[in-house]
Parts: sequence; C-alpha cells; structure tokens
Amino acid sequence: MKLYDWKGAPNPRRVLIFLKEKAIEMPVIDAGTDAGARLSDEYLADHSQRLVPVLELDDGTQIGEAMAICRYLESIHPEPPLMGSDALERARIDMWERRADMEGIGAASELFRNSHPAFAGRGLPGRAERIEQIPELVERGGARMTWFIEKFDAQIGDSPFITSADFTTADITAFCAMNFTEKVCKVRIPESCVNFTRWYEAVSARPSVARKQ
Amino acid sequence: MKLYDWKGAPNPRRVLIFLKEKAIEMPVIDAGTDAGARLSDEYLADHSQRLVPVLELDDGTQIGEAMAICRYLESIHPEPPLMGSDALERARIDMWERRADMEGIGAASELFRNSHPAFAGRGLPGRAERIEQIPELVERGGARMTWFIEKFDAQIGDSPFITSADFTTADITAFCAMNFTEKVCKVRIPESCVNFTRWYEAVSARPSVARKQ
Repeated sequence: MKLYDWKGAPNPRRVLIFLKEKAIEMPVIDAGTDAGARLSDEYLADHSQRLVPVLELDDGTQIGEAMAICRYLESIHPEPPLMGSDALERARIDMWERRADMEGIGAASELFRNSHPAFAGRGLPGRAERIEQIPELVERGGARMTWFIEKFDAQIGDSPFITSADFTTADITAFCAMNFTEKVCKVRIPESCVNFTRWYEAVSARPSVARKQ
Repeated sequence: MKLYDWKGAPNPRRVLIFLKEKAIEMPVIDAGTDAGARLSDEYLADHSQRLVPVLELDDGTQIGEAMAICRYLESIHPEPPLMGSDALERARIDMWERRADMEGIGAASELFRNSHPAFAGRGLPGRAERIEQIPELVERGGARMTWFIEKFDAQIGDSPFITSADFTTADITAFCAMNFTEKVCKVRIPESCVNFTRWYEAVSARPSVARKQ
C-alpha cells in the first residue's frame, strides 16, 4: 500500500494523522509539484478525480476520499479504534466527523480557495475547468469557520475530545480544518471558546500531529 | 426509534429510501411547518443543529447526519447489506457515496438555496443568522450538477449500479441529488449521459423510491 499526499492540504492530512495514531507505516508520495500549488502532471495523468488523498493497494486499486480510506484501514488494522467500538459510539463519531468535514473543512475550503492568489481560477478542487473565485465566499467562509469553532466549543464542553474521552476521527477532521485555516488563512480561535482552545492545544501536542516538512 | 423528516428535502430522503430497502418500519415525523419552507418552531426548540434528518432512539438519544444514521441502522439491521460486505467493498461504496454527497447533493444545495425565492436570506442550512443568497452560486451550482452527472455516467458504464451489480447507499445519495434538482430546479440529464439515464430510470422504478406526499 502507498498513500498520495499533497503537502499542506487538509484532506490528506486527515489520513496521515490516522496512520500515525495507528502506527501504520507505508510510503507517502507527494502528488504536488515543486513549482507551487498544483498537483503534478504525472499524478493527474493517473488519477482522473484530480483529488488527494488516494490510497493505492498493491494490486493497483485506488481508494479516494479521506474517510473511506480511514474506514478501510480501521477494518484491517482495528487497534487502537479511532472510529468507535459499538454501533452507537460509531454513529456519534460518524455524525461529528461529518459535521467537522462539512462545517470545518467546508468553511476552510471556501475561505482559502476563494481568497488565495495562487488559486485564482481554481475556486473548487477536482476540476480542470477554470472556476472563478467568488469574493462573497471569503467573508462567508470566515463566518462559517467561526460558527464551526463555536459549535464544537459547545460540544467539547468539559470533555477531553469531541465525542468522549477518546481521540477519534472526529478530532482528526476538526483539527485539520482549524490548523489549516490558522496557518494559511490566519484565522484565530475566538477567546471566548475556551473549551475549543484547550482541546486544540491538547491535540496539537500529540506526536501524530507533528509534521516533517 | 423515530425519524424526523422534512418533506421534499434530499437529505432525510436518503434515510427514508434506506429504511424501505431494509423493510425497517418506524414513525416518521415531518419537522416542517404547513406554512411553508421552514422547520417548525417545535422542532427547532428541541434540535439545536437546525438540520434534518435526525434519528431519535427510545432513550431520547439523537443521531443526526444521513449516513451516520444509515450506518447505525446497517449495524443493527444488517440485511440486506446496503454498505458493502467486506472492507474493500465498503471502501468503494463509502468513496462513491461521499462523492455523490459532496458533488451531487453539494451542487443541488448550492443551486437550490441560492435561487429559490423562499430561501432568500437562507443561503445555507443549519443556521439562524441571515445568510444572503449569492447569485454566482446559481450558475456554479448548475455547472457542478452537470459535472456530477457526467462523472457518475462514466463510473456507471455498463453496470447496473454505481459501484457494482448491487444497489447501495452510493446509489441512494446520487439518486436523491438528481431527483431533487430535477423536480425543484428543473435540471435535466444531458442526452449524452446514457448510462446515467438508464441507471436513473432503474432506480426510479424501485418500490423504495415511490413517495407518498
């Protein structure tokens, strides 16, 4: 097995953190180019979806979409469980993971893709066509990011992690959304969100989150 | 158990079709108002996420997000399997289901929420704040819908369904995206997409898809 990453992108990072938490080792290939914020021609020639991450099995089978990859790896490497241990726990994690994806990664993507000069004409990922940036989405993406932080601050409350005492894929996705917008879009956690701040600092200190780049 | 629906909305419909395919019966409550395109005050008072669907267990536990609900039901009612029977099959279904969600439901939502007069000031679901419609997203949502249909037309090829010979949650989500935009936004399948057309007609004929409303 090998994983296609794109350095700095939040979606492949969800899988990279998952791999480290599971202590699964595999080759990680950067699908980006040295020249800048683009996927390489070599990668695009072999990956019609024009998206990362992709897990490639030894027989060449390609699995895309971060959580499809994580769920596959959870099946074949069940320990430690990162997606729950019974039906109800899995449902709670699925629910909060999807909210982190739609509301956190969704906000991050809207804010970033519509504001970064290197992504002019590439307002959405995954397409070869020119897609114009929409200035209104910069403001809306920023507001959505704040709503995401406030919602998750309320959900975390006094708990160590988003759904319980255990670190799960919901934490991974929410962390990747926040960390990306903090680094790339200079979004800060509102001071009032003390639960989110405590959670973010705790996740940031995990060895799985340290990046070599 | 009971399910909160909002008649005509594509996300709760994903769960309604899933229930019928499984022959699971439970009370279905309409969270909308007779007055029109709004969730009822009664529902909103008890559901802080302001979203449908929600599955409520007998002890009051609420599970939101369509696929979190479906996966929970798949665990407790495994037959017939609608999310795959082994790790790799589940991964393929997860992958295509998420693409149907992000690209199909995502396009439908963008097109609909930014164009329908009844949703003026409600450009995104799940929030009480005023969120302006963005005219550029109507055109972009329509383009995305075409891209979604073309991508799935290629994926379906000669197969009966999206990932294989079996009907799965990937088919449910893709169907709900297409059926909603056809009915509400008058989007048509391009004539060139013969595989998608054949698939759409076959899914439309399933008893699980017939609506009483």
